[in-house]
Amino acid sequence: MTKDAFADSSDAVRTAGPLRHALHVTFDEPLALELGGRLPQVTVAYETYGELSPARDNAVLICHALSGDSHVARHDEEDDPGWWDIMVGPGKPIDTDRYFVICPNILGGCRGTTGPSTVNPETGRPYGQDFPTITIGDMVEVQRRLVDRLGITRLLAVVGGSMGGLLGLEWARRHPKAMLGVLPLATAPRLTSQALAFDVVARNAILHDPDFHGGQYYDQATRPVTGLAIARMIGHITYLSREAMAEKFGSDRLAPQDVAVPFEQRFTVGSYLGYQGAKFVDRFDANSYIALSTAMDLFDLGGSPWELAPVFQACDARWLVISFTSDWLFPPEQSRHVVDALAYTNKAVSYCSVASSCGHDALLLPHDLEMYGELTRGFLANLPRRDAEPRKEGNHAPTGIFRKHRLDYDRILDLIPLSASVLDLGSGEGELLWLLKHRHSARVRGVDVDPTDVRTCVGRGLDVIQADLNEGLPEYADRQFDYVVLSRTLQAVRDVERIMDEMLRVGRRCVVTFPNFGYEKLRRMLAEDGRAPQSTGQLRHRWYETPNIRFFTITDFEEFCTEKGITVQRRITLDTEAGEEVNDDPNRNADLAIFVLSR
Amino acid sequence: MTKDAFADSSDAVRTAGPLRHALHVTFDEPLALELGGRLPQVTVAYETYGELSPARDNAVLICHALSGDSHVARHDEEDDPGWWDIMVGPGKPIDTDRYFVICPNILGGCRGTTGPSTVNPETGRPYGQDFPTITIGDMVEVQRRLVDRLGITRLLAVVGGSMGGLLGLEWARRHPKAMLGVLPLATAPRLTSQALAFDVVARNAILHDPDFHGGQYYDQATRPVTGLAIARMIGHITYLSREAMAEKFGSDRLAPQDVAVPFEQRFTVGSYLGYQGAKFVDRFDANSYIALSTAMDLFDLGGSPWELAPVFQACDARWLVISFTSDWLFPPEQSRHVVDALAYTNKAVSYCSVASSCGHDALLLPHDLEMYGELTRGFLANLPRRDAEPRKEGNHAPTGIFRKHRLDYDRILDLIPLSASVLDLGSGEGELLWLLKHRHSARVRGVDVDPTDVRTCVGRGLDVIQADLNEGLPEYADRQFDYVVLSRTLQAVRDVERIMDEMLRVGRRCVVTFPNFGYEKLRRMLAEDGRAPQSTGQLRHRWYETPNIRFFTITDFEEFCTEKGITVQRRITLDTEAGEEVNDDPNRNADLAIFVLSR
Repeated sequence: MTKDAFADSSDAVRTAGPLRHALHVTFDEPLALELGGRLPQVTVAYETYGELSPARDNAVLICHALSGDSHVARHDEEDDPGWWDIMVGPGKPIDTDRYFVICPNILGGCRGTTGPSTVNPETGRPYGQDFPTITIGDMVEVQRRLVDRLGITRLLAVVGGSMGGLLGLEWARRHPKAMLGVLPLATAPRLTSQALAFDVVARNAILHDPDFHGGQYYDQATRPVTGLAIARMIGHITYLSREAMAEKFGSDRLAPQDVAVPFEQRFTVGSYLGYQGAKFVDRFDANSYIALSTAMDLFDLGGSPWELAPVFQACDARWLVISFTSDWLFPPEQSRHVVDALAYTNKAVSYCSVASSCGHDALLLPHDLEMYGELTRGFLANLPRRDAEPRKEGNHAPTGIFRKHRLDYDRILDLIPLSASVLDLGSGEGELLWLLKHRHSARVRGVDVDPTDVRTCVGRGLDVIQADLNEGLPEYADRQFDYVVLSRTLQAVRDVERIMDEMLRVGRRCVVTFPNFGYEKLRRMLAEDGRAPQSTGQLRHRWYETPNIRFFTITDFEEFCTEKGITVQRRITLDTEAGEEVNDDPNRNADLAIFVLSR
Repeated sequence: MTKDAFADSSDAVRTAGPLRHALHVTFDEPLALELGGRLPQVTVAYETYGELSPARDNAVLICHALSGDSHVARHDEEDDPGWWDIMVGPGKPIDTDRYFVICPNILGGCRGTTGPSTVNPETGRPYGQDFPTITIGDMVEVQRRLVDRLGITRLLAVVGGSMGGLLGLEWARRHPKAMLGVLPLATAPRLTSQALAFDVVARNAILHDPDFHGGQYYDQATRPVTGLAIARMIGHITYLSREAMAEKFGSDRLAPQDVAVPFEQRFTVGSYLGYQGAKFVDRFDANSYIALSTAMDLFDLGGSPWELAPVFQACDARWLVISFTSDWLFPPEQSRHVVDALAYTNKAVSYCSVASSCGHDALLLPHDLEMYGELTRGFLANLPRRDAEPRKEGNHAPTGIFRKHRLDYDRILDLIPLSASVLDLGSGEGELLWLLKHRHSARVRGVDVDPTDVRTCVGRGLDVIQADLNEGLPEYADRQFDYVVLSRTLQAVRDVERIMDEMLRVGRRCVVTFPNFGYEKLRRMLAEDGRAPQSTGQLRHRWYETPNIRFFTITDFEEFCTEKGITVQRRITLDTEAGEEVNDDPNRNADLAIFVLSR
């Protein structure tokens, strides 16, 4: 293991020195705090990147994580690297050639904005533990003052990961009209009890450090460096996945690096943690750690999609929610709660659970940037701007697979009224969604299991939730859509009854298309040749490798509908090879069926 | 939340008072330690339950977890409960009416056996931090002395969970002939880097407590209670699953109980952790915590099945390995490493990953006892004992499903020579395995995905590994079995090529049986009725609910074999309804095919 391995990973700010480009603004109006008390004066340290457009419609607010600061990226080649250099800069996903980026240090922090280490103007001493209990809401109010001061009435987007994601959610709750887009990454509507428990232990370690001096250690000879280092070590473990730790420290467990820190160094991972802990105390304030982690722990928008649904009701911004599969501190199921709440209330939301081995840290590492960076780029590019030139990407008609399906899609488009809201299940690269979206203005949403397809759709300005239909639909409300479409997918679904039930619950009408295994050519294969049916298109796969696991005919499906009390509103049967509709014995002569159903 | 909720969960010993039934034995021969140094004298505290049989062949050694002790169960109704009362006692899974149970406190502990708090006879003071670094191997040597002293040359079984499981593995490594059965639960061949990292932080908290006094706090006014409590809090979080914590503390997070402890009590989970931490310091010694957790962290039999395989080479005991799905401290994949190593080297091993929401704690809770307790009972009952009366359970011919399949199984039995070793994939309740096992003496093993079936097989004295064939086979060696059987399962397997490749790798010959979808009656259903084929037996399911996802005929399968270079040694085609072999156009007239294949 090299020293680089030590520096590589964390939620860490990569700079610890002075913030050379930080601007400061002081608000002299007292800030009344959510849980009572007030701050007589608040100073905010912030940095900006890029130019504010004449229409003031390109401002992107970035909210940092627990130990972050205003230095999100380097300002020039000589500058120190920022904590999110991989995401922010000219040509990068958050492109400073296009957007005006604002990153303030948060309230309660220790990197320029008012916090426990700030001198209380009313006493002339640092606040210490007299700093009042603050909330994520208070932090947002301070950011709001800054945004107002910069003359921005509406942000293009609020972006934040981890603790910064909590601020993003709180922005949407408090100021639902203040932004066009919300992009929370690796975050949650509240911490898990497990994550909260780790915070409690971390704070206990700080509070019981004899050098804590009741929080007034600023003028003492010693500071609670042990307690803060212990807190940081616990944090570090939670930022990494088990898999990432195995890879980093598993090959030789008894090869500690020689780091001059006062912690146990018998094991490789011990020297790593000791190094991280000791490094952290040089740049972070223990009282800030307590204030910020307590604010995180108090944050609670709700523990279920149903509790969350009213929270975001007033916010009509577009959403992109991103989580990481191996993140166990802010696990994907918590992001899904936010996504489900938004889906339930008709919001325009896209979601992607990025497959990553990097744990919570993935958010700051280049490893999965191709996925979360490009999702971010596509999302921001499709937010409407008054002064934007007509965009080239996203407005072109999709090509590729789509052409092959024209007959299929044309029929579906004919069946769906222009004013209808539509949910497309298994939306793929978004061809049908795109056609629907560009011929009328009603609500059009997609669901797909493939993250790459979701990324493509987000880049095309479509709203798609990544979810596996075998695990059920997002939590849509009953009859939320005029139409739900399941096109050429039913034959690949494990639990047919469940998906049919769900579709018929959330849609007034459902359009189901499927390949007919009663098609004459397929029958002959089995009846005459004694072979499993295998055809072109979706049937081209061999029996041992096909994604299709349900084999049924039009007759089978009609019987199924009768048995389950499903009403067939309309049936269209096609011979796609001949390119025509089939009316004579369709169970034998049609290779594709389109059913319009209702309950 | 009630106070009971506090008491309910943990790896905790449920008694903290004096061990009224503990016996003591002192060994005056010095103990040379694995990492150097020696202990001039070792005392062991232990308890026993039940009677040693005249043949001395019914002794079960139980190894406790980090904070456990010798009091594994109550001795009578007035006695304090033991830490594993649910498992040990008359009529319980480890039945003290049948077995002679021995549970010693481990070396390095603080509940009667020599440890850091013991007075060093050479100095007249407690060892403190002068206690030498001990290993799991040293603990086993002390247990070995005790077992010898009790006049037992061979144990019936060594049973242990968590840290106790490490001792079980080490027993098998050091004394491979000393037991007939090994039963490690919720354990691992080495800690994950993540688990090790938590231990490092815990030790740092103790070592940096100013009341630690370099480990010689025994005669001081204060002890490192804060550091030890912090360590225990971290431990407690790792014992619970995220799901269990959500359930326990999620409903009202701001309802701490009023517990008189000096730790943060703003949150419900905080008062729980504070209570657990404070309670622990009353009954545990900080130096012991350091000594035992260091021994755990140093334990490393290997990080892969291939490193582990030679470790257990000399041990011909029978094995039952149990893990719990939500255990993230000792995750199931680590138990699988042990299981794979044993499978690779032809050992008789059963494995079950018990579906549990309780995390590592599951091991001590009644929640999943029906599974892990009954597995244990069945495993112990089938270990051979010289003086055992003929057993009724386990030796009767299995009934049920088996009878329906007689034709199928009879043919398979005919095909396999008496002396052949056999692996049965998808072994179900073990009918075929049982028939094979009872007609000859060669190696017979099974794999099945269903934990309940595995439990049934273990109760029948069969060796079955719980594994999903869709995720590949256990790590068997090339050509390890004379025959591999896959009976009526291929049509339900997702990745047909992979399972066929694996079978042909580990077996010299493979027997594959499958329902023939080219069977005349099924053809007609599609060809004439235009319906998905549906028949009796395994084809009785409707198209939308059948577990069968691969539809193929004898012709299809033969083509597949040709394409993939698989040699068909023999083919038997049956009409199971008529109960006879089919030779005329079997692809049309047979409903079941049996193929013997090789590469």
